[in-house]
Amino acid sequence: MKNTAISRATMGRLPAYLSYLETLPHTVGTVSATTVARALELGEVQVRKDLSDVCGAGRPRVGYDVRTLTACIEDALGVHTACEAVIVGAGRLGMALLGFDGFAHFGVTIRRAFDSDPAKMAANVLPIQALTDYCALHQVQIGILTVPADAAQQSADFLVRCGIRAIWCFSPTRLNVPDTVHVRYEDLALSLAHLSQTVKNIH
Amino acid sequence: MKNTAISRATMGRLPAYLSYLETLPHTVGTVSATTVARALELGEVQVRKDLSDVCGAGRPRVGYDVRTLTACIEDALGVHTACEAVIVGAGRLGMALLGFDGFAHFGVTIRRAFDSDPAKMAANVLPIQALTDYCALHQVQIGILTVPADAAQQSADFLVRCGIRAIWCFSPTRLNVPDTVHVRYEDLALSLAHLSQTVKNIH
Repeated sequence: MKNTAISRATMGRLPAYLSYLETLPHTVGTVSATTVARALELGEVQVRKDLSDVCGAGRPRVGYDVRTLTACIEDALGVHTACEAVIVGAGRLGMALLGFDGFAHFGVTIRRAFDSDPAKMAANVLPIQALTDYCALHQVQIGILTVPADAAQQSADFLVRCGIRAIWCFSPTRLNVPDTVHVRYEDLALSLAHLSQTVKNIH
Repeated sequence: MKNTAISRATMGRLPAYLSYLETLPHTVGTVSATTVARALELGEVQVRKDLSDVCGAGRPRVGYDVRTLTACIEDALGVHTACEAVIVGAGRLGMALLGFDGFAHFGVTIRRAFDSDPAKMAANVLPIQALTDYCALHQVQIGILTVPADAAQQSADFLVRCGIRAIWCFSPTRLNVPDTVHVRYEDLALSLAHLSQTVKNIH
Protein backbone atom coordinates (compact mmCIF):
# COMPACT_ATOMS: atom_id res chain seq x y z
CA MET A 1 0.00 0.00 0.00
CA LYS A 2 1.24 3.46 -0.84
CA ASN A 3 1.46 5.99 1.96
CA THR A 4 -0.18 8.58 -0.25
CA ALA A 5 -3.39 6.55 -0.09
CA ILE A 6 -3.55 6.89 3.69
CA SER A 7 -5.81 9.63 4.97
CA ARG A 8 -4.66 12.22 7.48
CA ALA A 9 -7.16 10.88 10.03
CA THR A 10 -5.80 7.36 9.68
CA MET A 11 -2.23 8.65 9.95
CA GLY A 12 -3.23 10.25 13.22
CA ARG A 13 -4.30 6.89 14.66
CA LEU A 14 -1.29 4.88 13.48
CA PRO A 15 0.96 5.90 16.39
CA ALA A 16 -1.62 4.51 18.82
CA TYR A 17 -1.78 1.21 16.93
CA LEU A 18 1.99 0.95 16.86
CA SER A 19 2.20 1.80 20.53
CA TYR A 20 -0.34 -0.94 21.29
CA LEU A 21 1.45 -3.56 19.17
CA GLU A 22 4.69 -2.81 21.02
CA THR A 23 3.03 -3.67 24.33
CA LEU A 24 2.07 -7.18 23.16
CA PRO A 25 4.15 -10.06 24.57
CA HIS A 26 6.46 -11.66 22.01
CA THR A 27 4.44 -14.86 22.31
CA VAL A 28 1.47 -13.18 20.60
CA GLY A 29 1.81 -13.99 16.89
CA THR A 30 -1.39 -12.57 15.42
CA VAL A 31 -3.81 -9.80 16.32
CA SER A 32 -7.25 -8.93 14.96
CA ALA A 33 -8.73 -5.52 14.24
CA THR A 34 -11.37 -6.35 16.86
CA THR A 35 -8.72 -6.85 19.55
CA VAL A 36 -6.93 -3.63 18.63
CA ALA A 37 -10.22 -1.71 18.60
CA ARG A 38 -11.20 -2.97 22.06
CA ALA A 39 -7.79 -2.27 23.57
CA LEU A 40 -7.75 1.31 22.29
CA GLU A 41 -11.49 1.93 22.73
CA LEU A 42 -11.92 2.79 19.06
CA GLY A 43 -14.69 1.77 16.65
CA GLU A 44 -14.05 -1.63 15.10
CA VAL A 45 -15.09 -0.55 11.60
CA GLN A 46 -12.63 2.33 11.74
CA VAL A 47 -9.74 0.19 12.99
CA ARG A 48 -10.47 -2.46 10.35
CA LYS A 49 -10.33 0.18 7.60
CA ASP A 50 -7.18 1.80 9.00
CA LEU A 51 -5.28 -1.47 9.21
CA SER A 52 -6.51 -2.46 5.76
CA ASP A 53 -5.24 0.86 4.36
CA VAL A 54 -1.72 0.33 5.64
CA CYS A 55 -1.42 -3.45 5.51
CA GLY A 56 -4.12 -4.89 3.24
CA ALA A 57 -6.89 -7.18 4.47
CA GLY A 58 -6.17 -9.37 7.49
CA ARG A 59 -6.75 -13.12 7.36
CA PRO A 60 -10.38 -14.04 8.21
CA ARG A 61 -10.81 -15.16 11.84
CA VAL A 62 -7.08 -14.67 12.45
CA GLY A 63 -6.24 -11.04 11.70
CA TYR A 64 -2.73 -9.82 11.11
CA ASP A 65 0.70 -11.22 11.78
CA VAL A 66 1.95 -8.85 14.50
CA ARG A 67 5.41 -8.40 12.98
CA THR A 68 4.07 -7.75 9.48
CA LEU A 69 1.50 -5.27 10.76
CA THR A 70 4.14 -3.49 12.85
CA ALA A 71 6.41 -3.19 9.81
CA CYS A 72 3.55 -1.85 7.65
CA ILE A 73 2.65 0.82 10.22
CA GLU A 74 6.30 1.77 10.73
CA ASP A 75 6.68 2.22 6.97
CA ALA A 76 3.55 4.35 6.82
CA LEU A 77 4.87 6.47 9.68
CA GLY A 78 8.23 6.86 7.96
CA VAL A 79 10.07 5.36 10.90
CA HIS A 80 12.85 4.21 8.61
CA THR A 81 13.28 7.52 6.79
CA ALA A 82 15.79 9.82 8.49
CA CYS A 83 14.77 13.40 9.29
CA GLU A 84 16.43 16.07 11.43
CA ALA A 85 14.73 18.52 13.76
CA VAL A 86 16.11 21.48 15.72
CA ILE A 87 14.89 23.02 18.95
CA VAL A 88 14.48 26.78 19.35
CA GLY A 89 14.47 27.70 23.03
CA ALA A 90 16.97 25.97 25.31
CA GLY A 91 14.89 26.24 28.48
CA ARG A 92 13.97 23.28 30.66
CA LEU A 93 11.46 21.82 28.22
CA GLY A 94 13.74 22.37 25.22
CA MET A 95 16.60 20.64 26.98
CA ALA A 96 14.33 17.79 28.09
CA LEU A 97 13.29 17.22 24.46
CA LEU A 98 16.91 17.52 23.29
CA GLY A 99 17.96 14.81 25.73
CA PHE A 100 15.00 12.54 25.04
CA ASP A 101 16.11 9.31 23.37
CA GLY A 102 12.67 8.19 22.20
CA PHE A 103 12.67 10.21 18.98
CA ALA A 104 15.46 8.36 17.14
CA HIS A 105 13.29 5.25 17.15
CA PHE A 106 10.96 7.04 14.72
CA GLY A 107 13.63 8.22 12.32
CA VAL A 108 13.89 11.72 13.77
CA THR A 109 17.16 13.02 15.21
CA ILE A 110 17.49 16.16 17.31
CA ARG A 111 21.12 17.18 17.72
CA ARG A 112 21.02 20.88 18.54
CA ALA A 113 19.00 23.51 20.37
CA PHE A 114 19.31 27.22 19.58
CA ASP A 115 18.87 30.12 21.97
CA SER A 116 19.51 33.86 22.10
CA ASP A 117 20.77 33.73 25.71
CA PRO A 118 24.60 33.53 25.83
CA ALA A 119 24.37 31.91 29.28
CA LYS A 120 22.67 28.85 27.76
CA MET A 121 25.34 28.00 25.20
CA ALA A 122 26.74 24.45 25.42
CA ALA A 123 28.11 21.74 23.17
CA ASN A 124 24.61 21.04 21.87
CA VAL A 125 23.18 24.57 22.30
CA LEU A 126 24.16 27.12 19.64
CA PRO A 127 23.44 30.85 19.27
CA ILE A 128 20.24 31.56 17.36
CA GLN A 129 22.29 33.36 14.71
CA ALA A 130 23.77 29.99 13.70
CA LEU A 131 20.33 28.56 12.87
CA THR A 132 20.27 29.55 9.18
CA ASP A 133 23.58 27.92 8.34
CA TYR A 134 22.83 24.85 10.44
CA CYS A 135 19.45 24.26 8.78
CA ALA A 136 20.93 24.65 5.29
CA LEU A 137 23.89 22.37 6.01
CA HIS A 138 21.84 19.62 7.65
CA GLN A 139 18.67 19.99 5.58
CA VAL A 140 16.62 20.39 8.74
CA GLN A 141 12.90 19.99 8.09
CA ILE A 142 11.30 20.36 11.51
CA GLY A 143 11.59 23.17 14.04
CA ILE A 144 10.51 22.59 17.65
CA LEU A 145 9.45 25.78 19.40
CA THR A 146 9.92 25.84 23.18
CA VAL A 147 10.29 29.61 23.61
CA PRO A 148 7.94 31.80 25.69
CA ALA A 149 4.68 32.69 23.94
CA ASP A 150 5.74 36.27 23.23
CA ALA A 151 8.84 35.10 21.34
CA ALA A 152 7.10 32.34 19.41
CA GLN A 153 5.98 34.21 16.27
CA GLN A 154 9.39 35.78 15.74
CA SER A 155 11.07 32.39 16.17
CA ALA A 156 8.56 30.77 13.81
CA ASP A 157 9.25 33.44 11.18
CA PHE A 158 12.95 32.71 11.52
CA LEU A 159 12.40 28.96 11.15
CA VAL A 160 10.28 29.53 8.03
CA ARG A 161 13.05 31.68 6.51
CA CYS A 162 15.45 28.84 7.26
CA GLY A 163 13.34 26.60 5.04
CA ILE A 164 11.86 24.24 7.61
CA ARG A 165 8.61 22.57 6.56
CA ALA A 166 6.94 21.82 9.88
CA ILE A 167 6.81 23.37 13.34
CA TRP A 168 6.05 21.54 16.59
CA CYS A 169 4.89 24.37 18.80
CA PHE A 170 5.00 23.99 22.60
CA SER A 171 4.63 27.75 23.08
CA PRO A 172 1.05 28.55 24.20
CA THR A 173 0.06 30.69 21.22
CA ARG A 174 -1.17 30.46 17.63
CA LEU A 175 1.33 31.03 14.82
CA ASN A 176 0.94 32.74 11.47
CA VAL A 177 2.95 30.76 8.95
CA PRO A 178 2.62 30.10 5.20
CA ASP A 179 0.20 27.34 4.19
CA THR A 180 3.14 25.24 3.04
CA VAL A 181 4.42 24.95 6.62
CA HIS A 182 2.63 22.42 8.80
CA VAL A 183 2.15 23.33 12.48
CA ARG A 184 1.33 20.95 15.30
CA TYR A 185 0.41 22.63 18.57
CA GLU A 186 1.30 20.90 21.82
CA ASP A 187 -0.12 23.06 24.57
CA LEU A 188 0.74 21.13 27.70
CA ALA A 189 -0.97 23.56 30.08
CA LEU A 190 -4.22 23.20 28.20
CA SER A 191 -3.89 19.42 28.12
CA LEU A 192 -3.51 19.37 31.88
CA ALA A 193 -6.41 21.79 32.27
CA HIS A 194 -8.56 19.39 30.31
CA LEU A 195 -7.47 16.41 32.40
CA SER A 196 -8.04 18.29 35.65
CA GLN A 197 -11.51 19.26 34.54
CA THR A 198 -12.31 15.61 33.94
CA VAL A 199 -11.30 14.95 37.55
CA LYS A 200 -13.32 17.88 38.84
CA ASN A 201 -16.41 16.73 36.94
CA ILE A 202 -16.36 13.18 38.34
CA HIS A 203 -16.48 14.39 41.94
CA MET B 1 -24.97 26.08 31.51
CA LYS B 2 -23.87 23.14 33.60
CA ASN B 3 -20.54 21.53 32.86
CA THR B 4 -22.16 18.13 33.04
CA ALA B 5 -24.09 18.97 29.87
CA ILE B 6 -20.88 19.47 27.90
CA SER B 7 -19.77 16.47 25.87
CA ARG B 8 -16.29 15.05 26.10
CA ALA B 9 -15.64 16.03 22.47
CA THR B 10 -16.64 19.62 23.13
CA MET B 11 -14.49 19.69 26.27
CA GLY B 12 -11.58 18.64 24.12
CA ARG B 13 -12.01 21.65 21.85
CA LEU B 14 -12.51 24.26 24.61
CA PRO B 15 -8.77 24.72 25.25
CA ALA B 16 -8.27 25.66 21.60
CA TYR B 17 -11.12 28.20 21.77
CA LEU B 18 -9.71 29.69 24.95
CA SER B 19 -6.24 29.83 23.47
CA TYR B 20 -7.62 31.63 20.41
CA LEU B 21 -9.59 34.16 22.47
CA GLU B 22 -6.45 34.98 24.43
CA THR B 23 -4.67 35.96 21.23
CA LEU B 24 -7.28 38.58 20.35
CA PRO B 25 -6.27 42.23 20.87
CA HIS B 26 -8.06 43.90 23.79
CA THR B 27 -9.76 46.20 21.31
CA VAL B 28 -11.81 43.30 19.96
CA GLY B 29 -15.08 43.33 21.92
CA THR B 30 -17.11 40.61 20.22
CA VAL B 31 -16.38 37.47 18.26
CA SER B 32 -18.62 35.23 16.18
CA ALA B 33 -18.61 31.43 15.93
CA THR B 34 -17.80 31.91 12.24
CA THR B 35 -14.64 33.85 13.05
CA VAL B 36 -13.53 31.30 15.63
CA ALA B 37 -14.23 28.42 13.23
CA ARG B 38 -12.18 30.01 10.45
CA ALA B 39 -9.27 30.86 12.72
CA LEU B 40 -9.05 27.31 14.06
CA GLU B 41 -9.97 25.60 10.79
CA LEU B 42 -12.93 23.84 12.41
CA GLY B 43 -16.43 23.31 11.06
CA GLU B 44 -18.70 26.28 11.73
CA VAL B 45 -21.68 24.15 12.80
CA GLN B 46 -19.51 22.38 15.35
CA VAL B 47 -18.06 25.59 16.78
CA ARG B 48 -21.50 27.18 16.96
CA LYS B 49 -22.80 24.20 18.94
CA ASP B 50 -19.76 24.08 21.23
CA LEU B 51 -19.97 27.78 22.11
CA SER B 52 -23.70 27.49 22.61
CA ASP B 53 -23.19 24.57 25.01
CA VAL B 54 -20.85 26.53 27.26
CA CYS B 55 -22.19 30.06 26.86
CA GLY B 56 -25.70 29.94 25.41
CA ALA B 57 -26.63 31.38 22.04
CA GLY B 58 -24.60 34.31 20.72
CA ARG B 59 -26.29 37.52 19.57
CA PRO B 60 -27.40 37.34 15.92
CA ARG B 61 -24.92 39.04 13.52
CA VAL B 62 -22.69 39.97 16.49
CA GLY B 63 -21.73 36.79 18.25
CA TYR B 64 -20.30 36.70 21.76
CA ASP B 65 -18.83 39.27 24.05
CA VAL B 66 -15.18 38.15 24.21
CA ARG B 67 -14.88 38.57 27.99
CA THR B 68 -18.13 36.72 28.70
CA LEU B 69 -17.23 33.87 26.37
CA THR B 70 -13.75 33.62 27.90
CA ALA B 71 -15.27 33.43 31.39
CA CYS B 72 -17.77 30.75 30.31
CA ILE B 73 -15.04 28.59 28.79
CA GLU B 74 -12.78 29.06 31.81
CA ASP B 75 -15.61 27.95 34.07
CA ALA B 76 -16.27 24.91 31.92
CA LEU B 77 -12.57 24.05 32.02
CA GLY B 78 -12.49 24.48 35.79
CA VAL B 79 -9.80 27.13 35.61
CA HIS B 80 -10.98 28.65 38.85
CA THR B 81 -11.17 25.39 40.80
CA ALA B 82 -7.90 24.54 42.54
CA CYS B 83 -6.42 21.09 42.01
CA GLU B 84 -3.00 19.64 42.88
CA ALA B 85 -0.91 17.28 40.79
CA VAL B 86 2.34 15.44 41.55
CA ILE B 87 5.06 14.27 39.21
CA VAL B 88 6.51 10.77 39.43
CA GLY B 89 9.92 10.66 37.76
CA ALA B 90 12.29 13.57 38.35
CA GLY B 91 14.18 13.25 35.07
CA ARG B 92 14.59 16.08 32.58
CA LEU B 93 10.97 16.06 31.42
CA GLY B 94 9.60 15.74 34.95
CA MET B 95 11.69 18.66 36.12
CA ALA B 96 10.68 20.73 33.07
CA LEU B 97 7.01 20.15 33.93
CA LEU B 98 7.64 20.88 37.61
CA GLY B 99 9.21 24.22 36.72
CA PHE B 100 6.61 25.15 34.13
CA ASP B 101 4.57 28.15 35.24
CA GLY B 102 1.76 27.76 32.72
CA PHE B 103 -0.27 25.27 34.75
CA ALA B 104 -1.27 27.55 37.64
CA HIS B 105 -3.23 29.65 35.17
CA PHE B 106 -5.64 26.72 34.81
CA GLY B 107 -6.14 26.05 38.49
CA VAL B 108 -3.60 23.24 38.69
CA THR B 109 -0.58 23.46 40.97
CA ILE B 110 2.40 21.12 40.83
CA ARG B 111 4.63 21.51 43.89
CA ARG B 112 6.56 18.25 44.13
CA ALA B 113 8.15 15.53 42.06
CA PHE B 114 8.89 12.07 43.46
CA ASP B 115 11.72 9.75 42.49
CA SER B 116 13.38 6.56 43.70
CA ASP B 117 16.89 7.85 42.92
CA PRO B 118 18.53 9.38 46.05
CA ALA B 119 20.76 11.50 43.78
CA LYS B 120 17.74 13.39 42.49
CA MET B 121 16.42 14.58 45.86
CA ALA B 122 15.97 18.36 46.21
CA ALA B 123 13.71 20.87 47.93
CA ASN B 124 10.91 20.02 45.50
CA VAL B 125 11.90 16.38 44.82
CA LEU B 126 10.95 13.84 47.48
CA PRO B 127 11.63 10.11 47.82
CA ILE B 128 8.92 7.97 46.24
CA GLN B 129 8.19 6.47 49.68
CA ALA B 130 6.79 9.86 50.72
CA LEU B 131 4.16 9.82 47.98
CA THR B 132 1.39 8.14 49.97
CA ASP B 133 1.50 10.60 52.85
CA TYR B 134 1.89 13.59 50.55
CA CYS B 135 -1.13 12.62 48.43
CA ALA B 136 -3.29 12.06 51.50
CA LEU B 137 -2.23 15.33 53.15
CA HIS B 138 -2.67 17.48 50.06
CA GLN B 139 -5.60 15.63 48.50
CA VAL B 140 -3.68 15.20 45.27
CA GLN B 141 -5.92 14.16 42.40
CA ILE B 142 -3.61 13.96 39.41
CA GLY B 143 -0.40 11.99 38.95
CA ILE B 144 1.96 12.89 36.11
CA LEU B 145 4.09 9.96 34.98
CA THR B 146 7.48 10.82 33.49
CA VAL B 147 9.29 7.60 34.36
CA PRO B 148 10.81 5.20 31.78
CA ALA B 149 8.28 2.90 30.10
CA ASP B 150 9.36 -0.16 32.07
CA ALA B 151 8.68 1.59 35.38
CA ALA B 152 5.37 3.15 34.34
CA GLN B 153 2.93 0.40 35.36
CA GLN B 154 4.45 0.02 38.80
CA SER B 155 4.35 3.80 39.31
CA ALA B 156 0.76 3.94 38.07
CA ASP B 157 -0.24 1.19 40.52
CA PHE B 158 1.35 3.20 43.31
CA LEU B 159 -0.49 6.37 42.27
CA VAL B 160 -3.79 4.48 42.18
CA ARG B 161 -3.18 3.15 45.70
CA CYS B 162 -2.51 6.75 46.75
CA GLY B 163 -6.04 7.62 45.65
CA ILE B 164 -5.31 9.79 42.63
CA ARG B 165 -8.12 9.99 40.09
CA ALA B 166 -6.31 10.79 36.86
CA ILE B 167 -2.93 10.02 35.32
CA TRP B 168 -1.16 12.09 32.69
CA CYS B 169 1.18 9.55 31.17
CA PHE B 170 4.29 10.70 29.28
CA SER B 171 5.83 7.23 29.48
CA PRO B 172 5.53 5.51 26.07
CA THR B 173 3.36 2.59 27.18
CA ARG B 174 -0.26 1.65 27.92
CA LEU B 175 -1.35 1.42 31.55
CA ASN B 176 -3.73 -0.97 33.26
CA VAL B 177 -5.69 1.02 35.81
CA PRO B 178 -9.19 0.76 37.30
CA ASP B 179 -12.00 2.25 35.20
CA THR B 180 -12.47 4.95 37.82
CA VAL B 181 -9.03 6.38 37.04
CA HIS B 182 -8.83 8.53 33.92
CA VAL B 183 -5.63 8.27 31.85
CA ARG B 184 -4.42 10.76 29.27
CA TYR B 185 -1.50 9.55 27.17
CA GLU B 186 1.00 12.12 25.91
CA ASP B 187 3.43 10.19 23.77
CA LEU B 188 5.76 12.91 22.51
CA ALA B 189 7.87 10.57 20.38
CA LEU B 190 4.79 9.40 18.52
CA SER B 191 3.57 12.97 18.07
CA LEU B 192 6.88 13.91 16.49
CA ALA B 193 6.82 10.77 14.34
CA HIS B 194 3.45 11.83 13.03
CA LEU B 195 4.63 15.36 12.28
CA SER B 196 7.77 14.10 10.56
CA GLN B 197 5.73 11.79 8.38
CA THR B 198 3.62 14.75 7.29
CA VAL B 199 6.83 16.44 6.19
CA LYS B 200 8.10 13.33 4.43
CA ASN B 201 4.81 12.90 2.57
CA ILE B 202 4.77 16.45 1.17
CA HIS B 203 8.13 16.04 -0.53
